Amino acid sequence: MTEPSLRNRIESILHHADVIINGPRPWDIQVKNNRLYRRIMAQGSLGFGEAYMDGWWDAKSIDQLIARLLKAHLDERFKTFVVYLAALKAKLLNCQSLKRAYQVGERHYNIGNDLYQRMLDKRMIYSCGYWKNARTLDEAQEHKLDLTCRKLHLEKGQKVLDIGCGWGGAARYMAENYDVEVVGITISTAQAEYARENCRGLPVEILVQDYRKLSGSFDRIVSIGMFEHVGYKNYRTYFKKVSELLKDDGIFLLHTIGGKTPSERTDPWIDRYIFPNGMIPSAQQISRTFEGYFVLEDWHNFGLDYDKTLMAWHENFENSWAELDGKYDDTFRRMWNYYLLSCAGSFRARENQLWQIALSKYGLPEGYEFPR
Amino acid sequence: MTEPSLRNRIESILHHADVIINGPRPWDIQVKNNRLYRRIMAQGSLGFGEAYMDGWWDAKSIDQLIARLLKAHLDERFKTFVVYLAALKAKLLNCQSLKRAYQVGERHYNIGNDLYQRMLDKRMIYSCGYWKNARTLDEAQEHKLDLTCRKLHLEKGQKVLDIGCGWGGAARYMAENYDVEVVGITISTAQAEYARENCRGLPVEILVQDYRKLSGSFDRIVSIGMFEHVGYKNYRTYFKKVSELLKDDGIFLLHTIGGKTPSERTDPWIDRYIFPNGMIPSAQQISRTFEGYFVLEDWHNFGLDYDKTLMAWHENFENSWAELDGKYDDTFRRMWNYYLLSCAGSFRARENQLWQIALSKYGLPEGYEFPR
Repeated sequence: MTEPSLRNRIESILHHADVIINGPRPWDIQVKNNRLYRRIMAQGSLGFGEAYMDGWWDAKSIDQLIARLLKAHLDERFKTFVVYLAALKAKLLNCQSLKRAYQVGERHYNIGNDLYQRMLDKRMIYSCGYWKNARTLDEAQEHKLDLTCRKLHLEKGQKVLDIGCGWGGAARYMAENYDVEVVGITISTAQAEYARENCRGLPVEILVQDYRKLSGSFDRIVSIGMFEHVGYKNYRTYFKKVSELLKDDGIFLLHTIGGKTPSERTDPWIDRYIFPNGMIPSAQQISRTFEGYFVLEDWHNFGLDYDKTLMAWHENFENSWAELDGKYDDTFRRMWNYYLLSCAGSFRARENQLWQIALSKYGLPEGYEFPR
Repeated sequence: MTEPSLRNRIESILHHADVIINGPRPWDIQVKNNRLYRRIMAQGSLGFGEAYMDGWWDAKSIDQLIARLLKAHLDERFKTFVVYLAALKAKLLNCQSLKRAYQVGERHYNIGNDLYQRMLDKRMIYSCGYWKNARTLDEAQEHKLDLTCRKLHLEKGQKVLDIGCGWGGAARYMAENYDVEVVGITISTAQAEYARENCRGLPVEILVQDYRKLSGSFDRIVSIGMFEHVGYKNYRTYFKKVSELLKDDGIFLLHTIGGKTPSERTDPWIDRYIFPNGMIPSAQQISRTFEGYFVLEDWHNFGLDYDKTLMAWHENFENSWAELDGKYDDTFRRMWNYYLLSCAGSFRARENQLWQIALSKYGLPEGYEFPR
């Protein structure tokens, strides 16, 4: 197929999402290299993402572009464009990268905490905020932590396990505000060091440990933005282990990105540039693996708040670019923006969800209730 | 095995739930016929239930007895007592009977609306109430209906479908309080007649119709206490049909009893006496069949409220017995009490759940939120 006919084909599909090649609006695609069409058809999302990194195409607002493409349900209309659709659906998978990006970053770009300190809120919470009554990212993250604590029914003196504790922001918040003891685990030594310093003087213990190796007994367990890295083959192991670590009358709160349908692999662009082996669980993947270990007490979706969170991170990232420039090159900048903005677009399109799932082992005797 | 050794065996199991045969407390089992033990071992839940109907055993408080047996997790401790356990686990399945009991009742006991008018609240709502701020059954049902309407984001002029409308209580409430048009469907001509009278003068249309035969387009769809009668083989058909009937920006609220693990059959006692072919869905049975048709917006559990609801029905039933006596015999009375109280016990033990699940077709563009 010739370049012009490939272009015509893609243009006619984009038309249904009101996206115009070289059009004037923020969500229109500006094509800088005509080999783009062939690259998309041949390589799907990998080619689409790499082409952006290479500067073959641009858009004033990648988030708006991605949201429009996903909202148009092009996949339902053009079932034959399998390869092309892989590129669109890939947005769905982009977002599992949120944490491992850090690891890949460490390996390939020597990302230090400085990038995250500039991009994230003051508590360094690298997961979706709760914007219901928040005006700033700091507030959104604080409200998220408080929502989480209320859902956990935290009481003074309880022992809490935080699986995937990151830089210790949640552990510190719980210990400071609810007088609980916290054990936080992470597989990153760098995060653990930061987290220990962050929680100094509080009854918080930070361990570099895989959750599968942990033992003990906890009143409450929380896992924020870590399940995306567990892998569907380990879901059942994960819930079994959490069940063993939780007291019979305990509460487990799982905070995770969610997808519309089951997935078992990651997107190739993400796999190469952001994070290998992550995946977004669907509702059935979650429920079929917790059943038998847990009773479903509550399942809350505030996925649109991830759009706002990612846009806030993007704004912080761009505003800090002058300070970061030199340490990171322009390709990194384009990659990072593509990652943040395409994820924002996928949540805006409601293609991805943010779920908080409250589980108990046998059903709480007094029932489960919390003020939202 | 001899009767005494069977008794010893069962006594040692019951000991773990602090239930004593011929003990003095409300939850202790009073054995009136020593053939009970053999009947339980041979016939499981069918024998246990029939033996109660026959007066072979008694308990001052069947609800407390059942709750204790289930809370003791005897099934985890005595994996070999398969048959006996069937009797205990059967409590789980009892409760799918709530509506078909009416049908079987019509066939076998000539139950008229008089029983339900005495047993239920003034609106004749035959499903779980919402007791959070309620003192009476009437209030609990009104609050449940209002909670349901708020979750549906009802707005004036919308067209609402009520799948399994019963005696029209919910349809009437929505039309009266939210100025919406309602189509209610039921497979019972008797319920339809009552519902039409109940909703006279309101923009409510009641149809005797299977949901699979329906066509049209609705802003909102609600289904309260009907999914328990769909059958697992039809779950996917059900969600597909609801998706076809719902506008793209619509909301579907599913109100159903939920179980801990998947089930594919009904309990034999229930099958014979209360309701054939019902079943309680588990979270994975629900989510794996709505995926692809719906996005999960919210999943709320207020199962403990069914305990209160069933106890209120039981109280009304017993208080009305003088008026009902003569029309129903004592075996019916024992059967009905066993059904209401064992279900109450199963919810109190958190063995069964009451779930309200809010679903949208593509994710609501503005997100999903409601005041609880």
